[in-house]
Amino acid sequence: MEKMIITISREFGSGGRSIGKAVAEKLNIPYYDKELIKEVAEETGLSPEYIENVGEYAPGKSLLSFLPALTIHNKYPNNMSAADFLWCMQSKVILDLAAKGSCVIVGRCADYILKDDPHAVHVFVHASTEYKADRIVRLYGESEKRPEERLADKDKKRSVHYKHFTGREWGKCQNYHLSLDSGKIGIDKCVSMIVELAEQTNE
Amino acid sequence: MEKMIITISREFGSGGRSIGKAVAEKLNIPYYDKELIKEVAEETGLSPEYIENVGEYAPGKSLLSFLPALTIHNKYPNNMSAADFLWCMQSKVILDLAAKGSCVIVGRCADYILKDDPHAVHVFVHASTEYKADRIVRLYGESEKRPEERLADKDKKRSVHYKHFTGREWGKCQNYHLSLDSGKIGIDKCVSMIVELAEQTNE
Repeated sequence: MEKMIITISREFGSGGRSIGKAVAEKLNIPYYDKELIKEVAEETGLSPEYIENVGEYAPGKSLLSFLPALTIHNKYPNNMSAADFLWCMQSKVILDLAAKGSCVIVGRCADYILKDDPHAVHVFVHASTEYKADRIVRLYGESEKRPEERLADKDKKRSVHYKHFTGREWGKCQNYHLSLDSGKIGIDKCVSMIVELAEQTNE
Repeated sequence: MEKMIITISREFGSGGRSIGKAVAEKLNIPYYDKELIKEVAEETGLSPEYIENVGEYAPGKSLLSFLPALTIHNKYPNNMSAADFLWCMQSKVILDLAAKGSCVIVGRCADYILKDDPHAVHVFVHASTEYKADRIVRLYGESEKRPEERLADKDKKRSVHYKHFTGREWGKCQNYHLSLDSGKIGIDKCVSMIVELAEQTNE
């Protein structure tokens, strides 16, 4: 078997992360999510919380919460902002991980960063608002915000972050080899479709 | 087996039409393409050539070629233009066909027109420019225009037409249950993935 790299981009609540984990288990290859954040933290000295938030989301109104990271921006090369520095280092970590061997990477614009990797299969997972709203309430419980607002807010930030760093539209079919409506198709079937495709393209 | 409706939207040159035909054959259900145009022609009195062009593409610079259809617009209800009248009648024909029984419909914004049909599976087929350029030269031969220009021109018109009549972005993952890169995945595998999904969602 040749190397298999699978990137999974996903709408919040669509089950993309669960799908990614299950695909990695079935293919018996590493799944990078928290580990990726840990590696980026080690390379950059930034806090895992900062990386988790700013590495995938455009900052919202609570910019002040990122102040500790922003105030140290002048220590980065070429007077980069912390967010730009994070983008560079996160890209480097993703390229290094993909060079090392087969893996599944969820989120973090990995589809863009690995767009020229011939071993990569890029997947986008989405679902209807009803399906996602129901799923996040079941998984994460209720909160002050209505679930529809929580979904819209997270995805808006992902989309703005993606556009800013890649220049591309988030969720555009042409950026992915496969895109799946997990609500219509079902989580298990999504997993088997991705596994089959990854195995086929690496035969 | 319950009713199965499969709509296939596709980039020019991606093989979406061939995929649609093969899916219909495998499932042994009707495939609507030219037949749909014939039905719309009968319902509207518009010429099949006009329907083929204006029913899916935004008119380009050669607006004059559509003059015979445009000059008779005042015979349509509420002073509709011929293009708007065609949109209404084409939508009606598509809804009627889907109501009649299982089928595959390629193009003509059928994904939007049947977006609320619980039996429908909506698919988008795309591929890299290299793959599509190579494919159209192989299938349709060379022409004065470079194949890359022919691709861009056709898809631009499809995209503008789609946006105008549906208000949605053409080729956005969220509009389809499944989107496939036929170049990466291969035509045969695309066919079997769609067939499997249609069978599963109608079990």
